[in-house]
Amino acid sequence: MDIGEFREFGKAAVDYIADYFETIRNRPVLPEIKPGYMEDLIPAEAPLEGESWKEVLEDLDRVIMPGITHWQSPNFHAFYPTACSFPGIVGEMLSAGFGCMGLSWIASPAYTELEVLTMNWLGKLIGLPEEFLNCSQGPGGGVIQGSASEVTFIALLAAKEKKVTDLKAQGTSLTEAEIKGKLIAYSSDQSNSSVEKAGLLGSMPMRLLPTDESGVLRATVLANAIKEDREKGLIPCYVVANLGTTPTCAFDSLEELGPICQKEELWLHVDAAYAGTAFVCPEYRYLNNGVEYADSFNFNPHKWMLVNFDCSAMWVKNAKYLVEAFNVERIYLKDQHKGMAPEYRHWQISLGRRFRALKLWFVLRIYGVEGIQKHVRHQIALAKYFEELVSGDDRFEVCSSSMGLICFKLKGDDTLSEKLLENVGKRKMIFCIAGHHNHKFCIRFAVCSRLTERKDVIFAWNEFKEAADEIFEVKNQTPKIIDEVSEKKMNEMRISTRSETMCQEKTK
Amino acid sequence: MDIGEFREFGKAAVDYIADYFETIRNRPVLPEIKPGYMEDLIPAEAPLEGESWKEVLEDLDRVIMPGITHWQSPNFHAFYPTACSFPGIVGEMLSAGFGCMGLSWIASPAYTELEVLTMNWLGKLIGLPEEFLNCSQGPGGGVIQGSASEVTFIALLAAKEKKVTDLKAQGTSLTEAEIKGKLIAYSSDQSNSSVEKAGLLGSMPMRLLPTDESGVLRATVLANAIKEDREKGLIPCYVVANLGTTPTCAFDSLEELGPICQKEELWLHVDAAYAGTAFVCPEYRYLNNGVEYADSFNFNPHKWMLVNFDCSAMWVKNAKYLVEAFNVERIYLKDQHKGMAPEYRHWQISLGRRFRALKLWFVLRIYGVEGIQKHVRHQIALAKYFEELVSGDDRFEVCSSSMGLICFKLKGDDTLSEKLLENVGKRKMIFCIAGHHNHKFCIRFAVCSRLTERKDVIFAWNEFKEAADEIFEVKNQTPKIIDEVSEKKMNEMRISTRSETMCQEKTK
Repeated sequence: MDIGEFREFGKAAVDYIADYFETIRNRPVLPEIKPGYMEDLIPAEAPLEGESWKEVLEDLDRVIMPGITHWQSPNFHAFYPTACSFPGIVGEMLSAGFGCMGLSWIASPAYTELEVLTMNWLGKLIGLPEEFLNCSQGPGGGVIQGSASEVTFIALLAAKEKKVTDLKAQGTSLTEAEIKGKLIAYSSDQSNSSVEKAGLLGSMPMRLLPTDESGVLRATVLANAIKEDREKGLIPCYVVANLGTTPTCAFDSLEELGPICQKEELWLHVDAAYAGTAFVCPEYRYLNNGVEYADSFNFNPHKWMLVNFDCSAMWVKNAKYLVEAFNVERIYLKDQHKGMAPEYRHWQISLGRRFRALKLWFVLRIYGVEGIQKHVRHQIALAKYFEELVSGDDRFEVCSSSMGLICFKLKGDDTLSEKLLENVGKRKMIFCIAGHHNHKFCIRFAVCSRLTERKDVIFAWNEFKEAADEIFEVKNQTPKIIDEVSEKKMNEMRISTRSETMCQEKTK
Repeated sequence: MDIGEFREFGKAAVDYIADYFETIRNRPVLPEIKPGYMEDLIPAEAPLEGESWKEVLEDLDRVIMPGITHWQSPNFHAFYPTACSFPGIVGEMLSAGFGCMGLSWIASPAYTELEVLTMNWLGKLIGLPEEFLNCSQGPGGGVIQGSASEVTFIALLAAKEKKVTDLKAQGTSLTEAEIKGKLIAYSSDQSNSSVEKAGLLGSMPMRLLPTDESGVLRATVLANAIKEDREKGLIPCYVVANLGTTPTCAFDSLEELGPICQKEELWLHVDAAYAGTAFVCPEYRYLNNGVEYADSFNFNPHKWMLVNFDCSAMWVKNAKYLVEAFNVERIYLKDQHKGMAPEYRHWQISLGRRFRALKLWFVLRIYGVEGIQKHVRHQIALAKYFEELVSGDDRFEVCSSSMGLICFKLKGDDTLSEKLLENVGKRKMIFCIAGHHNHKFCIRFAVCSRLTERKDVIFAWNEFKEAADEIFEVKNQTPKIIDEVSEKKMNEMRISTRSETMCQEKTK
């Protein structure tokens, strides 16, 4: 493919993405296909001769689109948001176009330096104490990782390194292997699966402690667990506090947990993967009070902050422990700039690095701080509106409401809500998933897409309302919200779903 | 930014990349700036109000380009290639445009299914035994990871899981922590830094065993190390064999190491990060003989196979051990398709996954098998040509020649070659790095860019020849190769470097 063809192909791809966003609201959010659907659509072996880019691009509609769950659809309310913005997409494209590998400063100085500076921007933006920033005089700093899973694991390794170093300095009689065999970590039973996984990966048992009825890990629970484990001869090492849990977006209190970690000499890691973006708005920053106790902090601009995946922001108070856990030097990595700029390969799992800072820079500049604040406040307001709608129907109850996430259920037995979610799922018009609140089944409604508007919230609510009507076999007295736009949309979508299904049946 | 603006912005970015490739040959491959250069070029805080995309795009030339090391330049001969092709770039862009997160099958079935199918294509293409493929009946399969570093670490964790399971099944009296504390891994002293790092990350000491004078790990050396460690009470667990080492592209023999691993019940992982791409050509496939002994195999299409970073292909004979090492279930991850398609999140470190299979699919289809074979053979031929040029000058000696990598030095003391590399580096016209061959310093010349042609090889050789002339203060008798194109290019580049330096000085 020559440069001229690339210009055509690239621009056709830009139009494909633009067309996709223009039509996304009218696509059923969940695909209709069954596992293995693609096997019949593409050959079993790679083609011997090259094909034209036009053929390949045309196959997106035939092969890929039928199997896409539309995360950017305004009707996607599952999990948490995965960011996708136009500045983010273009940043990703240019990064691919430069095709460099940031494995050291000299391997492309701009890669390291833009990351250093944008991580300062970002840290200031969410009000992190200066000691976490690259621009501070101390050993702290920020780095972009691929995911919160990676970060939780990396922080665990740093915690392990620190504990071994500290105990050795205190003249322990234990060998390094003995120390490592006794280490133990803590988080709450509300933490993301990746927290437990970090324990598995790092060979450090992760105790998932029970939370209170709001999903919060209380100080006494942590303190008791530590005491218990010390009595068993174990060595408490690492705590992961959640600011915005996955099930209900609950917030642990760093002011409560921090002093215990300090006293007991435990590494405190803060996982604010989703909710950390809210700290861009001063009115939510109080939820981060006590962050000065943390050793490491993480949030994902690739969730709520409009930067395309992957962009997971991590800060540490002392990068020494990362570097010591990871540093393996080789002659082919040497350069004369050592020590003058961070060598981020020692802060992460892989040797190679993509130019992730570019998309972060694009998003921060093109949206501006005000643009991001507006986005956060808008999505929280939409969630509140959904909460109002649920509260207005006396068959339902709201279990929790925090940031852009509402958890709710039908009053009565869990099976009713399970049935409700199942029925809504079958219609494939909106996508919500299950959660737990206070040991009870609930439905999570998260405002995810940056395209979601008030009419989409009404649309989603009507889906639940109608499914509830079917379950109870009587219509609720609450009048259905009449919204012309949303009614029209619903009708259009039903027509389009029907005709797509017909098409698929025809082509079989 | 609305959709119309995105169309403009996206297309301007496509043109930016196209223009970059049109001018890349005439840019000095290494940047002129010093650490910290960017601090003066951008503000210390993110802008309050959003800026226009045009301003941001214009800043690429002002802020980013001066700090780019041009990995795609035909004069880049450092490390190994990092792939960047037009189909790869567009695949990356579309993946960003869809903005999905492949954390489970239902989270976007096309993500999982295209990965399953393209990993079959790829496995067949390099002649892997069927038991490694997703399309086999057994428990084997392929998955795309982010980097060889990740893969080596993941395979180590699987090896650990298997060893613990096996020993427990054999009725060991050791506890799990005791077993883990005694495990030990092996590779050669020629292995990539990421292999040692995998040992650090996974808390399993990695013994880097000495190689023969060709950089190959011999069977007796491995067998003796295992014996030694068993006598010490350690538990040998994991071996990383190299097919194409980083320093000199040396190949361990799987037919030699495999039977030992089988007999001693060690997990054999094959790291063919760079050279694995060569197995696309049948004439190089003999170097992979014995792969049937391997438990896991890895090569990086993002190195030599034209798929943009990141795309690291991993196959395992039995995925059970990965899944068991990584599996953490949560209610929000449940779906009714469990077991019918691989849930790749259990095969990797992170929960989230990008749509990496898309760019792999694009590259395989648009180049075709023949296109990739042609690329590999062309680059090897260019390396051979460079070898000829070096051999023709009796002040030089070739240390090793394998695939697209030539290692060479000046005859005599190491300091001469160090000086040579330093002088060539100062001129910034080409980029080569140091290596070791048989405990001696050497210079690595790798054919990296897909744009490199015969004239660029001549250009590079002339750089070394002239630098040698300076060192010896006498011209070598070998006549300089007269190549009009390359002479013209060299002159142009010198002029452009001078004028850029002048510009930079002016703007200060």
